[in-house]
Amino acid sequence: MQAAFFEGNQTIRVGPCQPVTPGPGHVQIRVHFCGICGTDLHLFHGAMAHRLHLPHVMGHEMSGVIETTGPNTAPWKAGDRVTARPLDPCGNCPACRAGHRHICHNLKFIGIDTPGALQGLWTVPAHTLHRLPDSLSLEQGALVEPIAVACHDVRMGEVRAGEDVVVIGGGPIGILISLVAAVRGARVLIAEINPFRLKLVRELGIDAVNPSETDVVTLVNERTGGAGADVVFEVSGSAAGVELMTKLPRTRGRIVVVAIFADPPKVDLFRFFWRELRLTGARVYEPQDFEDAIRLAASGEIPIDRLITTVVPLDGLADGFHQMERGGEVMKILVRCSEQK
Amino acid sequence: MQAAFFEGNQTIRVGPCQPVTPGPGHVQIRVHFCGICGTDLHLFHGAMAHRLHLPHVMGHEMSGVIETTGPNTAPWKAGDRVTARPLDPCGNCPACRAGHRHICHNLKFIGIDTPGALQGLWTVPAHTLHRLPDSLSLEQGALVEPIAVACHDVRMGEVRAGEDVVVIGGGPIGILISLVAAVRGARVLIAEINPFRLKLVRELGIDAVNPSETDVVTLVNERTGGAGADVVFEVSGSAAGVELMTKLPRTRGRIVVVAIFADPPKVDLFRFFWRELRLTGARVYEPQDFEDAIRLAASGEIPIDRLITTVVPLDGLADGFHQMERGGEVMKILVRCSEQK
Repeated sequence: MQAAFFEGNQTIRVGPCQPVTPGPGHVQIRVHFCGICGTDLHLFHGAMAHRLHLPHVMGHEMSGVIETTGPNTAPWKAGDRVTARPLDPCGNCPACRAGHRHICHNLKFIGIDTPGALQGLWTVPAHTLHRLPDSLSLEQGALVEPIAVACHDVRMGEVRAGEDVVVIGGGPIGILISLVAAVRGARVLIAEINPFRLKLVRELGIDAVNPSETDVVTLVNERTGGAGADVVFEVSGSAAGVELMTKLPRTRGRIVVVAIFADPPKVDLFRFFWRELRLTGARVYEPQDFEDAIRLAASGEIPIDRLITTVVPLDGLADGFHQMERGGEVMKILVRCSEQK
Repeated sequence: MQAAFFEGNQTIRVGPCQPVTPGPGHVQIRVHFCGICGTDLHLFHGAMAHRLHLPHVMGHEMSGVIETTGPNTAPWKAGDRVTARPLDPCGNCPACRAGHRHICHNLKFIGIDTPGALQGLWTVPAHTLHRLPDSLSLEQGALVEPIAVACHDVRMGEVRAGEDVVVIGGGPIGILISLVAAVRGARVLIAEINPFRLKLVRELGIDAVNPSETDVVTLVNERTGGAGADVVFEVSGSAAGVELMTKLPRTRGRIVVVAIFADPPKVDLFRFFWRELRLTGARVYEPQDFEDAIRLAASGEIPIDRLITTVVPLDGLADGFHQMERGGEVMKILVRCSEQK
C-alpha cells in the first residue's frame, strides 16, 4: 500500500509503505478518506517539528473500513465502517486520573506524535474507534473529527437555545461551530474577512459580516438591545480577533478560545473585570463529542457536503497544501487514501 | 460636621460640610470608621479623574450608626448599626434586567461617582444598607466591604473544600481572599514579594512564598502530585502575576482576575487551550456577599483586627495615603470620621 510521507522542507513523497500488523487491542483500517486540517498545513510549514519523526505520515480526519483486527478488540470486526478519535492518553497522569483524558499531560495525538491516516492501511488502538452509520457516506465520515471539535467547543461554551453567539473566523472550524450552535438553537453571526468564505457561509444560511467593513460591536449591541453577545468563539487566531472578543460579550458572557496562539497576545483583562466575563480554552474532544458529531452528521442538520471543496488522490496532497496556502476558494480538501474495494 | 475633601493634585482639605437631609428612600449615617482602599489611593494619584466632581469626598469601606431616616426606609431606624454596600445601579439596563445589578452598565459607585463616607454624616440610599450584629465592633464593621470583595471572588472561583488555591498578591484583598478560601476548606498559598506582608500572612497562619526566591510553579506541582492548582487568584495587577497565573492551574483549573489592569497585558492563551483553563473576571459584590462577609466577620473565623494597621483621625487621611504610598509596614488604615456619641 501507499503512504504520503512528509520529509520536512515542505516536501511530500508518496511511496510504498509496509502495513503494520495489528497487535493486541489494535485494528488495521483501510483508510478511505482523510481531510487536510489546518494543523497539517502548520506541520507542512515546519511547526511542531520536535514532535515528528521524519519521514512522517500526517492525517487525523479520516473514515475507513476495518481490514483486520488484533486480539482483544471485540466488538470490532473486519468490514465495520469507522472513524478514529486520534487521541492516545497515558491513563496515569493527574489529568487522566481527574477524568480529563483528552488533555492528558502526556497525550499522544495520533497523526502528529505517531503515524497518521494519510496511508492505505492504518493501524490504531481500538479504543479510538467510533462506528459510522450506513446513512453517512465515507466522504461525510471524514468530517466527523472536525465536527466533533465544534461539538466540544459549543459544549464548553454552554450554548443554550435562544442565545446570541458570535464566531470570529469563518474557516472550517468556525463554520462548523456556527452550524452546531445553530442546531442548538442559538442565533449565530460569523465575523470573517475572506470573501469566498463569507459567500459560502451565507449560502449555508448563517448570518455573516466582514469586520473590516462593519462595526461588529455596534451591530451586536443593536441586535441584543445593548446587552452584548452571550457567547463569543475566537477561532481566527489573530490579534484583531482577540481585541474584538472582549468587546462583544454581555455581562457574565462567555468567550471560548479555540484558536491556537503560539505567542501570548495582549488581552483586555479590564473588560473581564468590568463585565465579569468568562474565558474558557477548548482543546480537541471527548468521546461524547464524537458521538454527538456522528449523530448530527447523520441527521442531515449539518450541510457537510457543501464544506468539501474537492477530493484529491494521495499524490495530490502537496497540491492540497498549496491550495490551502493560497487561501481563496478552499474550505475542506479530502484525500482519497486507498484503492477502495 | 467635618469632611475630608479631595481637591485634586494629591491634596486633601478637612473642613466643615453641610449634612444632606435624607429624602425618600434615604438614610443619614453617622460614620464611625472608614477604611482607605487601594482605589482611594489611585483616586488620590489622579486616576478616574473624569468620574470625580472636585472637591470630592472619597470613602466606601465604612461602618456607622443611622442618625436619621427619610420617608420609606422601613425597617431602618435611628440607632441601627450598619455598613453600606456602595453600589447604586440604574435598574433598567440589560445587566440590571439580567439580574447583574452589581455590574450595571450605568453603575454609580458611591464614593467615586457620588460623595463617599469620609465625612461625619453621610446620606445614602437605604437599599445599600446591611445590619452589623452587636458582636462586631464598628472598627471591625469597616472591614465588611473588603471581606465582601473576597467572598465574591471566592464564590466566582467556585472554591471547594480540599482544593488547592494560590493567591498571587498579599495585600488586603489577597489576604482576605486567602482567609475566606481557607474557611471554605481550601489549602491556600500566597505568592507575595513584600517582606512585611509575607511576615503578617504567615503570622495569620497562611502559607506564603516569595516568588522572587522560590519557583512557585515547581512548588505547587510538588504539592499537588504534578496536577497543578485548582484555583488561582490574580490580585497583584502585575505582568509577572499574569505570567504566573497561567502556569499554575491544573487541567480545567480556574483563574479569577481580581486586579484591575488599566492596560491589556500579554496573556498566554495557548495555555488556556492546552489545559482547558477557565478565567473569570470578578468585580465588587452582590448582596449575598455582604451577608456572607458579615457572618464570617462575626464568627471570629477571620482575624480582622490583625489587618488593621492603625486608626487615624479624619485629618490624618493625607498621612494615611502617604503611608500607603511608601508601602512597607502597612495593611489596612481606618479613618475615624466623627466624634462618636
